[in-house]
Amino acid sequence: MAHLKKVAAKIQPIDAALQARTQARLDRLTKPVGSLGRLEEIACRYVAITGKEKPRLRKKRVYVFAADHGVTAEGVSAFPKEVTAQMVYNFLRGGAAINVLARQAGAEIRVVDVGVDHDFGPLKIGSSAENYGAPLKELIGRKVARGTRNMAEGPAMTLDETGAALDCGLLLAEEAAREGVDLIGVGEMGIGNTTASSAITAVLTGAPLKIVTGRGTGLDDEGLKNKIKVIERAIRVNRPDPKRPLDVLAKVGGLEIAAIAGLIIGAAAQRIPVVIDGFISTAGALVAVKLKPAVRDYLFASHQSVEGGHRVILREIGVAPLFDLSMRLGEGTGSVLAMNLIDAALKVLMEMATFGEAGVSER
Amino acid sequence: MAHLKKVAAKIQPIDAALQARTQARLDRLTKPVGSLGRLEEIACRYVAITGKEKPRLRKKRVYVFAADHGVTAEGVSAFPKEVTAQMVYNFLRGGAAINVLARQAGAEIRVVDVGVDHDFGPLKIGSSAENYGAPLKELIGRKVARGTRNMAEGPAMTLDETGAALDCGLLLAEEAAREGVDLIGVGEMGIGNTTASSAITAVLTGAPLKIVTGRGTGLDDEGLKNKIKVIERAIRVNRPDPKRPLDVLAKVGGLEIAAIAGLIIGAAAQRIPVVIDGFISTAGALVAVKLKPAVRDYLFASHQSVEGGHRVILREIGVAPLFDLSMRLGEGTGSVLAMNLIDAALKVLMEMATFGEAGVSER
Repeated sequence: MAHLKKVAAKIQPIDAALQARTQARLDRLTKPVGSLGRLEEIACRYVAITGKEKPRLRKKRVYVFAADHGVTAEGVSAFPKEVTAQMVYNFLRGGAAINVLARQAGAEIRVVDVGVDHDFGPLKIGSSAENYGAPLKELIGRKVARGTRNMAEGPAMTLDETGAALDCGLLLAEEAAREGVDLIGVGEMGIGNTTASSAITAVLTGAPLKIVTGRGTGLDDEGLKNKIKVIERAIRVNRPDPKRPLDVLAKVGGLEIAAIAGLIIGAAAQRIPVVIDGFISTAGALVAVKLKPAVRDYLFASHQSVEGGHRVILREIGVAPLFDLSMRLGEGTGSVLAMNLIDAALKVLMEMATFGEAGVSER
Repeated sequence: MAHLKKVAAKIQPIDAALQARTQARLDRLTKPVGSLGRLEEIACRYVAITGKEKPRLRKKRVYVFAADHGVTAEGVSAFPKEVTAQMVYNFLRGGAAINVLARQAGAEIRVVDVGVDHDFGPLKIGSSAENYGAPLKELIGRKVARGTRNMAEGPAMTLDETGAALDCGLLLAEEAAREGVDLIGVGEMGIGNTTASSAITAVLTGAPLKIVTGRGTGLDDEGLKNKIKVIERAIRVNRPDPKRPLDVLAKVGGLEIAAIAGLIIGAAAQRIPVVIDGFISTAGALVAVKLKPAVRDYLFASHQSVEGGHRVILREIGVAPLFDLSMRLGEGTGSVLAMNLIDAALKVLMEMATFGEAGVSER
């Protein structure tokens, strides 16, 4: 975890003076003061994070981390485990929701295998239908393990595996900075990963499992009861220490969740704002914020997911979602939808006329 | 009002069978059933409104109706009345928030003078600064009167004026249909128009003035108290009949609000979906829905405004907003922001792979 500590130490509080100066600039534009509400808050915080007084979203990118979960052996998901790998192929061919929505938002997609229980081998990627956009060029292979172990029976990951997955995210953030990415979105794919997210949330926030455990991709009442019991067992067996986020992450987390935490910490160190998505990516953010509280100001929360645990984390880390569309898909779909709002906010700052320029009377 | 009645009579309920068939199509796509939440609802309703099973938003357009209000003589606004005309010039030059946000959403803007107290004369429109987008080509001149009369002293409009403003909206909807507009946004500019909107809302919904009256562009406590008193007086003096929406519209409404009601009714008759914006455009929608209840299913509510009356109307007409960003600017800014979401929803329907195509296992 040496690299993690070094990177986390670089993270500074965002520039409050610049934030205030940006608000003052917004207040001179031809609109009643504050009347663009949270768009104004977005613009100010974006500038304060990046230090760029003339911000433009030239390059938006969403990372989709895929990994499997040993806990699926306990019947915690409505879909079979094979779907993780199948969906990775779907991402690469361009047919999934994240492909469609990223294209709509003008964002690049990077799919990262950080722990799928499948050998993708040499990939021949081709689109299977005309209606899809261009297929992706590559799958980024960073497999740490073929999925986690069953956390109901012991730790999901070793500390070494956890560190490797965190490093994967950290390194991708450094690459993103080198490549001039202006805004990072975070997504994931991993059958079973709401189970890990609920466990992390329960341990790190102290909220009851009944509140932080949801139906995931579509469990019925029986399935939900079983899921809660499995998580209770995982916590009893592993005794994760709420004061040590990495212990919690290793014992009841997941490889994609660790990679997300790493990406967020790495992005904050590089002053790149991150848009988080639903429950799982926000669980990654929770770990990141617990490791380094200053990270929270680098985050934009896109949407409020249907999963109850999502609300609990957002409240815990103090980041308010931009919209609530009753979504619960993951993949980064909320992140890319929010990119349009962030783009709009920055354009307001950059392109509107001032009262003086437009000859409009002030109050 | 003969034309209004004829057009309103054409409005049919939206196609419920097609709506259900579209949901069934969405349920075959590679995502858990219902997991895209309100995006799915948007796609289904868009198809049911238009009858287009392969919907594409090729042409999006927002109408910004500008008009003045005699009631500004009572000191109900934080900004001087001259700002209405000044902001029209700002729209035409491309420097206002609606210009920036419409451009971001890829929507055309049409600015309509339906009652500004200013002679625009022959316009020479040029952009005054490099950072703005292209200036608009024209101001659509449909001036019915130079603003309304002071509703605190008598009816804001005659029935003839009201009819002419409604017709303005009806005719623009017919033109939009001829020009192949796929989605209409509604906006407005008119110093004093939250006062008219609060009056309409109080009369047509029966909600107390204290709840439906807000600070508009930024009144202080004293100003807000005065605004409520002025509206009370307007209602006492005019005695608008809650059972006759046109009586209410004429007596305590506004020219831009009437034009918006006309546009909405005209669009519904042409099966073009309409995205409403904040409090004022939603007051126009309230009048339209009271005149013809079937109109409500043709509406998408973009955002929840800070103005308390907005929430009251949305509940009354049964349309839920897509986001709440604490905005209170008007101009159609919320409408165009929502167009990105509607575009995203339709692309999900059109571009995602099915489970069968992608070879992904179902639950």
